[in-house]
Amino acid sequence: MATETLIAQAARVKAAARVVGLAPVGQRNGFLTSAAERIRKAAAGITEANDADLAAAVAHGATPTSLDRLRLTEARLEAMAVGLETVASLGDPLGVVVEGFVRPNGLRVERVRVPLGVIGIIYENRPNVTADAAGLCIKAGNAAFLRGSSAAMGSNRAIVAELRAALVDAGLPGDAISLVEDPSHAVAAEFMGLRGYLDCLVPRGGPALIASMREHAQVPFILDGDGNCHTYIDADADLDMSVEVVTNAKVQRPGVCNATETLLVHASVADQVLPRLDVALASVEFRGCERTRAFVGRATVASEADYAEEFLDLILAVKVVDSIDDAITHIARYSSGHSEAIITSSLRAADRFCREVDAAAVVVNASTRFVDGGELGLGAEIGISTQKLHARGPMGLEAITTVKWILRGEGQVRR
Amino acid sequence: MATETLIAQAARVKAAARVVGLAPVGQRNGFLTSAAERIRKAAAGITEANDADLAAAVAHGATPTSLDRLRLTEARLEAMAVGLETVASLGDPLGVVVEGFVRPNGLRVERVRVPLGVIGIIYENRPNVTADAAGLCIKAGNAAFLRGSSAAMGSNRAIVAELRAALVDAGLPGDAISLVEDPSHAVAAEFMGLRGYLDCLVPRGGPALIASMREHAQVPFILDGDGNCHTYIDADADLDMSVEVVTNAKVQRPGVCNATETLLVHASVADQVLPRLDVALASVEFRGCERTRAFVGRATVASEADYAEEFLDLILAVKVVDSIDDAITHIARYSSGHSEAIITSSLRAADRFCREVDAAAVVVNASTRFVDGGELGLGAEIGISTQKLHARGPMGLEAITTVKWILRGEGQVRR
Repeated sequence: MATETLIAQAARVKAAARVVGLAPVGQRNGFLTSAAERIRKAAAGITEANDADLAAAVAHGATPTSLDRLRLTEARLEAMAVGLETVASLGDPLGVVVEGFVRPNGLRVERVRVPLGVIGIIYENRPNVTADAAGLCIKAGNAAFLRGSSAAMGSNRAIVAELRAALVDAGLPGDAISLVEDPSHAVAAEFMGLRGYLDCLVPRGGPALIASMREHAQVPFILDGDGNCHTYIDADADLDMSVEVVTNAKVQRPGVCNATETLLVHASVADQVLPRLDVALASVEFRGCERTRAFVGRATVASEADYAEEFLDLILAVKVVDSIDDAITHIARYSSGHSEAIITSSLRAADRFCREVDAAAVVVNASTRFVDGGELGLGAEIGISTQKLHARGPMGLEAITTVKWILRGEGQVRR
Repeated sequence: MATETLIAQAARVKAAARVVGLAPVGQRNGFLTSAAERIRKAAAGITEANDADLAAAVAHGATPTSLDRLRLTEARLEAMAVGLETVASLGDPLGVVVEGFVRPNGLRVERVRVPLGVIGIIYENRPNVTADAAGLCIKAGNAAFLRGSSAAMGSNRAIVAELRAALVDAGLPGDAISLVEDPSHAVAAEFMGLRGYLDCLVPRGGPALIASMREHAQVPFILDGDGNCHTYIDADADLDMSVEVVTNAKVQRPGVCNATETLLVHASVADQVLPRLDVALASVEFRGCERTRAFVGRATVASEADYAEEFLDLILAVKVVDSIDDAITHIARYSSGHSEAIITSSLRAADRFCREVDAAAVVVNASTRFVDGGELGLGAEIGISTQKLHARGPMGLEAITTVKWILRGEGQVRR
């Protein structure tokens, strides 16, 4: 059961969500532009709070990666401001009539897009998520109830203060963006149990957070899951393209969910393409099957676990397969359902891959790195869903709305 | 943890789902027409199995209501067959391109509708759900993994045997429709925990089933929830229409989720409309506020609990309110988010009600009884969702699909 304090805060957020949900888009956009301006003006103060968080993290022995995720540079603050302005420039997702028709008895029926209500977001480090997520939530007529990590508490507080002031600037209730004050794991578990207050919870974090969600969540949630992504080089692949695309998919930003983790190569081209990848991916550790190791001498033996792992690092698991069927079967077994790519010149192979691979995104002749809200034109993303219900793949504004049926009649009754 | 037997069965269903998901619509429709034919031909055998279930239920002291839900009359068997044929006549939900565009870098992007995979359905009594749900699942390219109640086991087995034979008729794997053989609560809990095997679970039952879902479910689910539905008679309502619509909403079929449970009446028309409803709803028990009781002498005092309850019976809670605001506030407090209606001639009141009431369906000048898949033209329904994620309101074929992003390029890499 959640404590009185958390429930009281949740009740305020819920009341504020009602107001934001009924506010015209001009007012919601007014918040976004005002927030961008305020974040620019408050840059010094926010940086100061961030420096204190960083110093504490260093004292606690944080890794360079986690320090990097925690750090707010001037460029990152500017990116936050630009992000809010971009969301302001997007169309209003609310009020869109998804479907409309008239029934034989004269009932006029519409399905209309409406806000979800209160969106809860649990995230680790990365204080820029605070502004990104809150901006999307308000644009879609929702309130944002945020639970950041203890390491980023000072930075998050400084950003939320500006966002709340921007809500008031726009005539909206400040409680529509609210930060959980106690970053303990106990309160996080209470937060996941706020049934009746959270309409949707989006956890953005690693396996420990997901496991905790599965244990404690009492509210509907959307999992921003792992990406054990594959790229398959088909027998009919253009080999120059293969080398370029695989290199991009692996090394352009290895620490993110849409980076390729396993390479599958058709046996008929392995002898030509693997030696070239050995060179192109010189910075990458190879873990391969026996046939891979025949062409990449430095490759170590890949275990079952290697094929199942999301390395998030400069490591590539490689397997030589005898057919597209074997590639599809391998993917069906190890995929986390995020993004799967094929490089091929065969229309038939491309079509089969698109049809038969079960993932949020299937990519033909391009880098898996494109499976991203910004790259796909969503303007911004609240996360990438690896579940099948509600939202799948990159989630923009539409993913944080729902629909309402509206029936209009002139006294119809059911016979 | 699920037992070996249940997991082995689930694995067969999952493998079958893959085949159904890739089968052309002609083959899926072939199953539906063959199933309708087989159910008509096997009517005698199915009725015999049902008679045995009924006799056992009587011996166990089943209530008349639950016996009625369990009973398969000739008319109900014919309705099952017609239902399957209707689903065959609906358009194919699969392969629909929900959205498609080209990015500035030339990437061609589509979102395409695809099956969910394996749909689990837990239901109580009502053996007709077996054919209805399985038919919808196969049409949408899914497999149906069914867990019926022990009371209906014989009837369900007889129906599933015909459905599986119809799958084979159409060249599809029989395992795409599969019935859990052990109807115990322990196995139901295991069933809810089949993570990796069930892509979506739809529980159709009462509060005890929902509570069990909240405790045991490890897979994504869609709640087919309660309907504590309100009808509000506004100050500007046509009173003849009000009497007719409220009467229909309450008595046409009181035991279902879209029947009206609470009537709200604007104070300015209470003296005119309540005495008329007292007469029109002579068979209905009234539980009202003080002001209601001034016009309906036989009304007992309504408690807080009465306003919160889904009676599913010939009982009506009534409250006189001073304004549409009070009506909307009352609904916000007690609504289960199913269907809420207003009777009014005021455009402003209708628009406010549609905008401000948060429910799966909002109805203007018609009976709440219309919030139903058949009545709204979905052809059939898998249930009515009272949740906001994925599907809301009556769920037809589209609700048991998901989307897949497809990206097609010519070697694009991310810079």
